[in-house]
Amino acid sequence: MSAMYIGLDVGGTTMKACVVDSAGHASTSVSMPTESQRGQEAGLATMCETIRRAAAAANKTMADIAGIGVATPGTMDIKAGLILDPPNLKPWRNVPVRQFVHDTFKIPTAFQNDANAAAYGEYWVGAGREVKSMVLFTLGTGIGGGIIIDDKVLEGQHSHGGEIGHMKIAYEGGRLCGCGRLGCLEAYASATAVVKRTREMLVTDPNSTLHRALTDTEEELSSRTIFMAAEHGDELAKKIVDETAYFLAVGAMNMMHTIDPDAIVFAGGMTHAGEPFLERIQHYIHQLALPVPAAKTLVRYAQLGSDAGYYGSAACAKYLVEGKL
Amino acid sequence: MSAMYIGLDVGGTTMKACVVDSAGHASTSVSMPTESQRGQEAGLATMCETIRRAAAAANKTMADIAGIGVATPGTMDIKAGLILDPPNLKPWRNVPVRQFVHDTFKIPTAFQNDANAAAYGEYWVGAGREVKSMVLFTLGTGIGGGIIIDDKVLEGQHSHGGEIGHMKIAYEGGRLCGCGRLGCLEAYASATAVVKRTREMLVTDPNSTLHRALTDTEEELSSRTIFMAAEHGDELAKKIVDETAYFLAVGAMNMMHTIDPDAIVFAGGMTHAGEPFLERIQHYIHQLALPVPAAKTLVRYAQLGSDAGYYGSAACAKYLVEGKL
Repeated sequence: MSAMYIGLDVGGTTMKACVVDSAGHASTSVSMPTESQRGQEAGLATMCETIRRAAAAANKTMADIAGIGVATPGTMDIKAGLILDPPNLKPWRNVPVRQFVHDTFKIPTAFQNDANAAAYGEYWVGAGREVKSMVLFTLGTGIGGGIIIDDKVLEGQHSHGGEIGHMKIAYEGGRLCGCGRLGCLEAYASATAVVKRTREMLVTDPNSTLHRALTDTEEELSSRTIFMAAEHGDELAKKIVDETAYFLAVGAMNMMHTIDPDAIVFAGGMTHAGEPFLERIQHYIHQLALPVPAAKTLVRYAQLGSDAGYYGSAACAKYLVEGKL
Repeated sequence: MSAMYIGLDVGGTTMKACVVDSAGHASTSVSMPTESQRGQEAGLATMCETIRRAAAAANKTMADIAGIGVATPGTMDIKAGLILDPPNLKPWRNVPVRQFVHDTFKIPTAFQNDANAAAYGEYWVGAGREVKSMVLFTLGTGIGGGIIIDDKVLEGQHSHGGEIGHMKIAYEGGRLCGCGRLGCLEAYASATAVVKRTREMLVTDPNSTLHRALTDTEEELSSRTIFMAAEHGDELAKKIVDETAYFLAVGAMNMMHTIDPDAIVFAGGMTHAGEPFLERIQHYIHQLALPVPAAKTLVRYAQLGSDAGYYGSAACAKYLVEGKL
């Protein structure tokens, strides 16, 4: 029988855990609300409870589990197994996640950044399963990322590997990012940035159908609304979507000229826009990147949705147990 | 007795080779003119002759040599051991360097990109010898680069790893790079770019002492002249130098937010500008980068000068022979 791992993905709103075997087959996943405002002791208890429920959902006891992997949002010290001061898990601070989970279950426990884990999940059983190296862009409120090279997460020396949302694509001036810096990729191409850029353009474009979303109580201006308006031919929305594809191509190109991975993978809500959006990204990559990587690098969407995190943290547990860490 | 390796660094003008032992101690190096215009057969013969002379200069025979490493400029297919169509070695094309050298000496032969090899040399015995991961920027006619993570060169899946001169730092518009693209770091901060930016500014600044260099037959306008003028207080030159430090900090920051290495190392002629220039780069890195990498990443100059290439190619030979490849 193949070894069983539990991957736990801790998000700002919910935690999700699942038993995954060493071949990458997942059992039924379970979720619990994170409720970070209840404090970090409660949070650690919820993590352990979610792990227990994942085992139960798979009809396993904890004795059947070879390793546990926990992924959380940053900031963090990955090597130390610590969450430091995570903006999405306030008011937690300096939480010894790995130690606590390990002490609770006495099972080998791996710890990882959530975007890195998502990248590792896609690499293991999703969009990157046949490649050797991969860069994942997760497009949400911000832009997260994970870099996998030769079956290993590039954590970085100070746990900042793959912080590709904060790659500067405008050396001077540039849009204000959530991190307080100017010109970060995230300030141009996250879902939040797409909405912000649209709001700015609506001021000078009275004809867009998107004005409805600003006043209608049934609808709100979201990246989803904007992508749908583009599909329905709204000129302003089409321009926003096209520029977003361009910005993502700039980010992809910079990864091709540094990491030069087999595959660049995009994840997050915006990928619901489907093939036409991906084709625009590819179009701009061909314009921008050096000929060989432009021609050869695979560019695709992620396949695991919000399950990537627990797959990836289970993969980290497997990696740990198999002695590769 | 420790194993002996020969590292050969093939440049556009000269080839340089040296015997280096497994502890990183180098013997006397030898050089020969590259003369690429004589064709690639002549070039391959010169490579082998330079290797032989390196052995002789160390009082060794080829039988004493455990491995050979050859570094050349791109474009190339590193895994295949091929130079493809190198701009600095015209008219060479599709040259099976590794195979030829191996067949000549029947000794295990490694092949690497020259900037990657320089990075590996600095990592082994130079500026990065106590770190785990390092990014090298080589500032010359262009900007080359090499990325080392956990004792391994990041070659990339299509031999484009570490092409950090072609990271885009201006997402739209931007300066024209030698590669034909707009907005590459190289178009702002290479030695050539420094001269070009200075020429442009001189048009509107009649007071700079650098005008002399434009007319004087004794002196030419080079990055060296410009850095010296800055040292002597020329305002225009000071502005150019300061902006160059800023551009390099943008490049360094982008590496900190993706690779997150232990150390960022700058090599090439401009580093003769000494500590004040490095301090300006560090100053801007502190302004630009996320707090943890800004505070913790080592930022320093390379230490091996033009010897880095043969040290690094010898290190690649060692890596090959020790079975890590």
